[in-house]
Amino acid sequence: MSAAHASAGGSAAAAVASGFFRSRWVERPPSAHELEPGTLPQGFRAAGVAAGLKPRGLDVGVLVSDEPGTTSAARFTTNALVGAPVAVSSEAALDLLRAVVANSAYANVSDGERGMATARESQAAAADLLDLPAEQIGLASTGKIAVELPGERLIDGIATAVANLGPDALDFSEAILSTDRGPKRASLELALPSGTVRLAAQAKGAGMISPRFATMLCFVQTDAALDAETLDLLTGVCVKRSFDRISVDGQLSTSDTVYALASGASGVRVEQQTEDELRFGEALDALLRQLALEVVGDGEGATRVGRVVVRGADELVEPVARAVADSPLVKTALLGADPNFGRILQATGQALAGRAPFVVDLDIEGHRVASAGQELELSAAEWQALERAVARPEVEIELTVPGSGGETEVFFSDLTHDYVSINADYST
Amino acid sequence: MSAAHASAGGSAAAAVASGFFRSRWVERPPSAHELEPGTLPQGFRAAGVAAGLKPRGLDVGVLVSDEPGTTSAARFTTNALVGAPVAVSSEAALDLLRAVVANSAYANVSDGERGMATARESQAAAADLLDLPAEQIGLASTGKIAVELPGERLIDGIATAVANLGPDALDFSEAILSTDRGPKRASLELALPSGTVRLAAQAKGAGMISPRFATMLCFVQTDAALDAETLDLLTGVCVKRSFDRISVDGQLSTSDTVYALASGASGVRVEQQTEDELRFGEALDALLRQLALEVVGDGEGATRVGRVVVRGADELVEPVARAVADSPLVKTALLGADPNFGRILQATGQALAGRAPFVVDLDIEGHRVASAGQELELSAAEWQALERAVARPEVEIELTVPGSGGETEVFFSDLTHDYVSINADYST
Repeated sequence: MSAAHASAGGSAAAAVASGFFRSRWVERPPSAHELEPGTLPQGFRAAGVAAGLKPRGLDVGVLVSDEPGTTSAARFTTNALVGAPVAVSSEAALDLLRAVVANSAYANVSDGERGMATARESQAAAADLLDLPAEQIGLASTGKIAVELPGERLIDGIATAVANLGPDALDFSEAILSTDRGPKRASLELALPSGTVRLAAQAKGAGMISPRFATMLCFVQTDAALDAETLDLLTGVCVKRSFDRISVDGQLSTSDTVYALASGASGVRVEQQTEDELRFGEALDALLRQLALEVVGDGEGATRVGRVVVRGADELVEPVARAVADSPLVKTALLGADPNFGRILQATGQALAGRAPFVVDLDIEGHRVASAGQELELSAAEWQALERAVARPEVEIELTVPGSGGETEVFFSDLTHDYVSINADYST
Repeated sequence: MSAAHASAGGSAAAAVASGFFRSRWVERPPSAHELEPGTLPQGFRAAGVAAGLKPRGLDVGVLVSDEPGTTSAARFTTNALVGAPVAVSSEAALDLLRAVVANSAYANVSDGERGMATARESQAAAADLLDLPAEQIGLASTGKIAVELPGERLIDGIATAVANLGPDALDFSEAILSTDRGPKRASLELALPSGTVRLAAQAKGAGMISPRFATMLCFVQTDAALDAETLDLLTGVCVKRSFDRISVDGQLSTSDTVYALASGASGVRVEQQTEDELRFGEALDALLRQLALEVVGDGEGATRVGRVVVRGADELVEPVARAVADSPLVKTALLGADPNFGRILQATGQALAGRAPFVVDLDIEGHRVASAGQELELSAAEWQALERAVARPEVEIELTVPGSGGETEVFFSDLTHDYVSINADYST
């Protein structure tokens, strides 16, 4: 742990001047103010240690709630191939988790019975050290896949971490990183009608996946009291609006995991269908959306983030948004700050294959560039304004496809030389 | 036309020593021997000219059959957004085409009524010059999309090309190129039971699409006599086994086009369900497969070609093969000559999302590396052999997924720095 921040978990934690909610696509929740990043809600302790899984740096983290009444929720990857930590955790008491154990460097995927044994042993070791049933421990591993995770180092690391648990998540949030450029974390204080609670989260990810070196993980804590059903509902909705809406390279990880734990230590209860729940949900939504945007912005090699919004028939909006977000041609145009709407229309047409006529409207940064599938003539001034707009760090694309009733969005990064280098030159 | 090759269309065209069928994945058709590339079957003439669509080089091509009894077949992109040349040609007499007009530099896509008028005018101009009905002229344009195709230059180019029609397709095969590193063409002489015929084709493509600069086109000629139904059937089957099986960047073009014309000038008739048809089909199949492989090998920035073969349930093999072939992580591993089977399993699991258990076998270059989804221990010698094998120009991946009855293959290129440069740095 970073001693300088060790007091940040205390009640006097100062509000942060520079904002966490940097993206124009995330509304700052009105009832929230920011605490020092790493501040944990009441009832939680965490640690991150160097266990020798990485050549250098922190690589094993433990986060625990000391409140017996803690509730929890979890979400895992839908990939048919899942890591042993996902397989083992899926069978845990996901509504009653008290602790999570996370490691970077090795994802423990495709390692057969040996990998399963390592996952179970790490869960049992943490349970022993924390005096909890194994089924109340969630696991999360990220890093190389199809490579053995050194189990002894992991278990030694868990012991060291448990011995060093403290009131902030600064080191924990570093121990989960792989190719990330830096930690992704925030801590909020929420003024709910029923009282003040804290909400914090730590995430990592520089790709939906870049096997051998990445995965998306997120750990959420609050000291509000929520029954497990409410926490699960809110977590599910907010994950669908955040981590489910991002793409670095279109590649679904084998290890993606989100854990949310509510200690209840604030004494403030968030009941369903109350103003408390509404405000808490708003804040959780904003928190996860901004963290998801940080994952995209930190996508391997990324220099710019795009948002594609698609409106039209319910069954069309998702495939069109994914086709645009995952097109290497759209992604290289984003890198090149090129308002290349032909590529956006081509990807849209691919997703709509077999559905004529091609009646699609396209706006880039508020400029209508195509109507009913056909290019519009832009004035020189409009074109220049468009070129300036697409050179900014965030670029918005809006598509209207046939039909109505559906609307979705996907946030995506550009495709760069560094992405190729990270994944080709340095992977072996 | 290249004068040095002008005699190649004559009956004395020499067989070529260096083979066109370079890929181990294409069986050299036993009844074929190679002629000088560019050699046209009897009854055909072609030309390629510089009409000023490109800053330099040939950009307009015309190919015509002088035989009134010519039959034809065609295949077009299934993208919902199609170029005006595709839209206009789709309504032509596709079983009775006598000529094709092709241009590079501009694809004439998303240009509304102006684009449609240009396509129709170019078709009418060629019809006038060749004294044919407009409906017997097929069109094909490739190049920038969502940009006006200069119609006057195209029509002037058609006139120049018609005035310069000659017995080889050398210039024609150059006029259709965009980001291609060089022409893709072959000419075969086939010893059929009923007599000797010729079969030739010219293709282009450096991406399924790279809008503004590419598309896949292929023009096939034979002097065998085939009724239109037989030619259509053979063309359809062979296109499905060749151009439908390749991916540079997973991006479906707005302009992909294949035209096959049979002049009958050899006097040899290929009837359905005969040994003639079998041998002709074998040769057409090999010809289009090798050309398709040349498109992949010449994929923008490509350095290496992969083939993924998937066996298992019929409904699973195609999505799995596409997921692997289009994964940027698999493609960068191919670039890095990295036998990174974790990435192949991850992409497979993504395509199989929701279908547990993950019982997948994986072989790379004949080495079994995963069984039932789990990594196998390879000896050091086996690992070294695998590493050498994946550093070669062609790399084979075989997957067995649950179920049976289905088998497919996709050929794909690697993802390189040059792909990013071509599509980001130089696109505006």
